[in-house]
Amino acid sequence: MIETSLRINRDRLEHSIHELAVYGRNGQGGLDRTAFTPAELEARGWLKAALADEGFGVRVDGAANIWGRRDGEHPELPSIICGSHIDTVPNGGRYDGALGVLMALEVLRTLNDKGIVTRHPFELVSFSAEEPNPFGLSTFGSRAVTGKLTREQIEGAVNGEGKRLTEALEEAGGSLECLSHALISKEEAGVFVEVHIEQGKRLIGQGIPVGIVTAITGIYREEVTVHGEANHAGTTLMDDRCDALTAAAEMILAAEDICRTFPAAEVVGTVGQFRLLPNAPNIIPGEVRFLAEFRGETAAQLQTVVDEWSSRLELSGQRRRVAVTRKVILNQPPAPMDQSVIEVMDRMADMLEIPSQHLGSMAGHDAAHLASVTRSGMLFVPSIGGKSHCPDEESRMEDIEQAANVLLYTLLDLDIILDAKG
Amino acid sequence: MIETSLRINRDRLEHSIHELAVYGRNGQGGLDRTAFTPAELEARGWLKAALADEGFGVRVDGAANIWGRRDGEHPELPSIICGSHIDTVPNGGRYDGALGVLMALEVLRTLNDKGIVTRHPFELVSFSAEEPNPFGLSTFGSRAVTGKLTREQIEGAVNGEGKRLTEALEEAGGSLECLSHALISKEEAGVFVEVHIEQGKRLIGQGIPVGIVTAITGIYREEVTVHGEANHAGTTLMDDRCDALTAAAEMILAAEDICRTFPAAEVVGTVGQFRLLPNAPNIIPGEVRFLAEFRGETAAQLQTVVDEWSSRLELSGQRRRVAVTRKVILNQPPAPMDQSVIEVMDRMADMLEIPSQHLGSMAGHDAAHLASVTRSGMLFVPSIGGKSHCPDEESRMEDIEQAANVLLYTLLDLDIILDAKG
Repeated sequence: MIETSLRINRDRLEHSIHELAVYGRNGQGGLDRTAFTPAELEARGWLKAALADEGFGVRVDGAANIWGRRDGEHPELPSIICGSHIDTVPNGGRYDGALGVLMALEVLRTLNDKGIVTRHPFELVSFSAEEPNPFGLSTFGSRAVTGKLTREQIEGAVNGEGKRLTEALEEAGGSLECLSHALISKEEAGVFVEVHIEQGKRLIGQGIPVGIVTAITGIYREEVTVHGEANHAGTTLMDDRCDALTAAAEMILAAEDICRTFPAAEVVGTVGQFRLLPNAPNIIPGEVRFLAEFRGETAAQLQTVVDEWSSRLELSGQRRRVAVTRKVILNQPPAPMDQSVIEVMDRMADMLEIPSQHLGSMAGHDAAHLASVTRSGMLFVPSIGGKSHCPDEESRMEDIEQAANVLLYTLLDLDIILDAKG
Repeated sequence: MIETSLRINRDRLEHSIHELAVYGRNGQGGLDRTAFTPAELEARGWLKAALADEGFGVRVDGAANIWGRRDGEHPELPSIICGSHIDTVPNGGRYDGALGVLMALEVLRTLNDKGIVTRHPFELVSFSAEEPNPFGLSTFGSRAVTGKLTREQIEGAVNGEGKRLTEALEEAGGSLECLSHALISKEEAGVFVEVHIEQGKRLIGQGIPVGIVTAITGIYREEVTVHGEANHAGTTLMDDRCDALTAAAEMILAAEDICRTFPAAEVVGTVGQFRLLPNAPNIIPGEVRFLAEFRGETAAQLQTVVDEWSSRLELSGQRRRVAVTRKVILNQPPAPMDQSVIEVMDRMADMLEIPSQHLGSMAGHDAAHLASVTRSGMLFVPSIGGKSHCPDEESRMEDIEQAANVLLYTLLDLDIILDAKG
């Protein structure tokens, strides 16, 4: 039986958001806290100290993920895990990732305040290197502990200055040798719940403080290289050209068109990275290389989009007499969230009389990887203006408070119903 | 009266092509002979020695242009000038520029062979830094001596390593202080004739050994910046985007379309330089900056193209809710070649029974600048495969020989008809 008067401490949570936002702050008001940079290592230090101050067992696993454990009545039961990440994109904001970790911390502190004894161990986790980073492995920590990275991938990862990821890992307290011990099993992990900012405008537009995530988008990303013919921009008549850039322009518009006309709004496509050779004002571009990315909530949606993209690429290549080579960089299937966790979230929001809405996550999250080894659920907090990955990223404290209370009760309800006898 | 049995020495010309091609040769078979590099300074040394060996007066002007003078009967008459340049693009070929200088050398040597006394002084010129170079001033030598560069432009030019152009000039024998004395006037220059490879496929396609240039293309170049809105590539629905890259893609295709559908084949348009920000796979591009270039043989053609371009840019900007800023980088008007020189070329080719064809030059050349101070004419030699600015750049010796003989007789005929009494 849950005590229904329990509430998280909004002021303490707000204070912790300010405290963590000190690390990596730059002159533009944003945060430069890329994984394994000095600023991020300092933020890790702050988190470990905060956990230790509350008397939680602190450990750092092989992937340098930080864990804080609050023991329960039955140490043999699997853990109820909650968290996110504290690294940021360059010039990022104070909420993406950090909010999920700080909200987990606030829930654990609230349990301490009232001396609540849970049945299961409760664990906070802060996953390493969730954001894109110079080692080229985003969602590194959650992929590492769910067995989605090979030893070769990790050993081979090097940043722009030639530093190995394995070296950076050790500086953060991790270790390649201990990675196999860090793998999470269903026996140890009863459930994983992540809170994150929405990074979109759906909740804020409707004034709803809590989103309950139904599935995390699948992401398909490929590198396309268009091989044309570099030539003199003056002496080569229009009909004699094999211009890699105009061919690529047609492809970029095709990607946009496919997603715009797709019947489901949650299908999106983006070309975000792009370079051309030789990149001289008076030479027709001979080669263009770009990354095309597609996202969809179901595997079927993604397949349809990629099939259409393939045929449009082929068509453009033929019509424009350019060769096209393709390399799949990422093919992460959509991850449905656990139905039983969604039901608990629905019930707790209703009980607390907090408006909520089901929605898909268009961004990838650590919870997508955790979903392959345990029950996973996610809550979204509205983003003002839908902004994220920028200094302006912000969420309202009143929304944050509501979401934190739904989280608190969700975890407490899961503590009751998971592994219940009979 | 011209002696009609005179012919240039093909073997000697071929040998000189091989001799000059030693300077700057790289491992890929191309030439790295960018202006003012050690390799280019060595090539200058070779040329000055070759001119001195023939007994010609050698001088280097303030812009480091190399001049070789063969006196005529009447020193008070203006010079008949012939030449081009010996610098190359990185990994360039043996013919672009060099052929025009070596052909002028061969004509002067042929006059020496037979002890021909001309009425006018004959001068060979090798212009400095015709190709794009690290100082950012292409066709430097011909612009400097025709008064098209300000002292500020020259003093302010610095390469990537912080070296000043004025310093490089002095290493090559030039001098900023002497630049005003290097200005060419109509009184000193009676005519300028340049031979160059076509760098296109028109002559080679029809098996015609000599092209007679009617005009040198005008070049309009502008920098376009498209200001969209950087945003999360997952959480921003297609309809909520202001994607700078897809907008730019539409503009690139518009530039191509305008030129492809233009009634005159000599109108071309190219986007050769392009970059985007922030250039991350999962962020919608917030800004794209590119250089758009248009070329046409008449000012009217160019104006029509630029007008159409302007309205297409405006349309794309409005439709896609992106701001567009534009900066004109270059606006070089088309340069018609001198009609009387063209007529002499026509007549001499006919007399020698060498097939020739009128055509516009789609590339810029030193002759375009000389045309503003004196009569100018150009001959083109076919380029195998239309290739240039690459190690494969080549022209057939039989075509080179025919063009050199047309050049020889053109200069000799101009010697007769220019400044003729009565």
